[in-house]
Amino acid sequence: QQQYRIALLPGDGIGPEIIQVAVEVLKLVGEQLNIGFAFQEALIGGAAIDATGEPLPEKTLEICRSSDAVLLAAIGGYKWDNLPRHQRPETGLLGLRAGLGLFANLRPAKILPQLIDASSLKREVVEGVDIMVVRELTGGIYFGQPKGIFSSETGEKRGVNTMAYAESEIDRIGRVAFETAQKRRNKLCSVDKANVLEVSQLWRDRITALASEYPDVELTHMYVDNAAMQLVRNPKQFDTIVTGNLFGDILSDEAAMLTGSIGMLPSASLGASGAGVYEPVHGSAPDIAGQDKANPLAQVLSAAMMLRYGLNQPEAADRIEQAVLRVLDRGDRTGDIISPGMNLLGCRAMGKALSEE
Amino acid sequence: QQQYRIALLPGDGIGPEIIQVAVEVLKLVGEQLNIGFAFQEALIGGAAIDATGEPLPEKTLEICRSSDAVLLAAIGGYKWDNLPRHQRPETGLLGLRAGLGLFANLRPAKILPQLIDASSLKREVVEGVDIMVVRELTGGIYFGQPKGIFSSETGEKRGVNTMAYAESEIDRIGRVAFETAQKRRNKLCSVDKANVLEVSQLWRDRITALASEYPDVELTHMYVDNAAMQLVRNPKQFDTIVTGNLFGDILSDEAAMLTGSIGMLPSASLGASGAGVYEPVHGSAPDIAGQDKANPLAQVLSAAMMLRYGLNQPEAADRIEQAVLRVLDRGDRTGDIISPGMNLLGCRAMGKALSEE
Ligand SMILES: CC(C)[C@H](C(=O)O)[C@@H](O)C(=O)O
Ligand SMILES: CC(C)[C@H](C(=O)O)[C@@H](O)C(=O)O
Repeated sequence: QQQYRIALLPGDGIGPEIIQVAVEVLKLVGEQLNIGFAFQEALIGGAAIDATGEPLPEKTLEICRSSDAVLLAAIGGYKWDNLPRHQRPETGLLGLRAGLGLFANLRPAKILPQLIDASSLKREVVEGVDIMVVRELTGGIYFGQPKGIFSSETGEKRGVNTMAYAESEIDRIGRVAFETAQKRRNKLCSVDKANVLEVSQLWRDRITALASEYPDVELTHMYVDNAAMQLVRNPKQFDTIVTGNLFGDILSDEAAMLTGSIGMLPSASLGASGAGVYEPVHGSAPDIAGQDKANPLAQVLSAAMMLRYGLNQPEAADRIEQAVLRVLDRGDRTGDIISPGMNLLGCRAMGKALSEE
Repeated sequence: QQQYRIALLPGDGIGPEIIQVAVEVLKLVGEQLNIGFAFQEALIGGAAIDATGEPLPEKTLEICRSSDAVLLAAIGGYKWDNLPRHQRPETGLLGLRAGLGLFANLRPAKILPQLIDASSLKREVVEGVDIMVVRELTGGIYFGQPKGIFSSETGEKRGVNTMAYAESEIDRIGRVAFETAQKRRNKLCSVDKANVLEVSQLWRDRITALASEYPDVELTHMYVDNAAMQLVRNPKQFDTIVTGNLFGDILSDEAAMLTGSIGMLPSASLGASGAGVYEPVHGSAPDIAGQDKANPLAQVLSAAMMLRYGLNQPEAADRIEQAVLRVLDRGDRTGDIISPGMNLLGCRAMGKALSEE
């Protein structure tokens, strides 16, 4: 029997509820397919701050490093919003990405036919949308030095961050993107702001150079402002998008919202080797935490992504994804995706429905 | 008789055609209301590169500086895309903004009832949308130092740009934004990435501090990734948005595209004193240049913004805006906004229709 060590990071808000559902589903599919999971829980985000004073205790990093994959729920909440930067939940997340070397963030934005009416866009505009955003995750303005708030000679403060990319950083995310496009529809759109930024000029030059190694992939380039427009105008024109950390943060959220059901979207963060992190695109929703109202499906689909990309267990991944579609087909919905005539379920009941299917 | 000096910068692509229509409309409204305009044309962008080798000749800046307002059409085109950075059309535009000190860019995104079906969003989502994006235009990552492509000791290249804001830069755009909100629905949303970027933290602190001077304005803050989502999900929640140069570039284009008729949107770029620049949000559309197909309405509405914000001639501005609405009411449309049952007009014919109304 194949045996995997899975680090569980429930985090904050609805995190513990939704990760519980994912664990149940993993256990069940493990029994069915004879895959063993050893789960180990660890602290991150606000929960870690409350318990230890820091958002990413060293012990958590150790547990993640010695695991085969990390399942993360969500972090953050109003409660920790006014702490100094090094003590904020987000800082723990950034530390996890850097600490595990997770430079590639895969964020699918796919329309599910059952939920198409949840989109704020017209049906004909979003029908069939299936975009994969490949976002660079350990570089760019998120980590560039110098950064900080500095005082000038006159005593005036100046806030500074640095957007920087080295050729090797661009190349490695570029390769992930070309390979991702090859597994999809062979179309890659690289997004930058090369008409203004030097860092984007280098980005464009390197991605263009890489293209010769992937002659089957059709590469295009787009400025980030235009990409933000084109996603609204005609999202179907996109297959795979590759971009830097900040632009990827903005565009992947915009693309996710086109589907209208952000409670359904998983993501994967991968490094060159070692454990990847699998987590929903949505946040920790502190306003509904602990009320059994949360939608666990993005978390469950994140577990499926973990099986597919991290543990190479495509059959288990398929089973979970099929179960999600069947639950939607039978009309089961949590509050965030409810529509007239459907059955309103809580988080736990949705977990039960999944296990049945 | 009031007499104004107007600098005309036709630029590239469809620029000359559409600015011609705006000039005719200005002349007509000037005759009607006894306002005199002395127009002086100057080179910018690709047209300037072709004639002089640089995208913003010193003479152009001089003409703009000695004018009461600048009417700009559009710049850029494939032809100049591979020139070195200092010779690109965009560099001319950035130079104009910096040279005239135009730190405040006002970009309205307003749904016109006549064109609501052009939006890719559902009618009920966009009906009544009326957003003003106040974008900082002479700071942030567009101008921050250091910037460039540098070689490390190992010979690897690294692209670098710097996102920086000083307190005084934040304060002056903040004041413009609060005052703009006061003339609208008294709601201001400041967009940043303060959970990750120090420059955004300073931005948020200063905007928050300013709020006490504008107690009638309701101030909220939003992260840029969430703003990109919320614009898609429910754009009606926004009134006035204030943000930095890069985020404003992205979000104002996204907001513009919500309307579905980017060929209708004007913008104004203003400094502390001196001439402002008034220009359409859309680009130079080189593919249809010279074919009498362009939509001149955003350019004409830019002229109306010039009358309202730059020359303090609200009656003339009203007349032009009314004429645009009446032309739409009678069913006249250029190709970009055509729909079944409407009359297809070219650029010149649209100008004639405006003059009639
Ligand atoms: C919470 C925040 C630091 C994070 C980011 O900006 O990367 C989030 O928005 C995301 O996209 O995962
Ligand atoms: C052409 C380009 C330099 C410019 C910008 O990025 O500011 C444009 O996108 C705009 O928004 O006016």
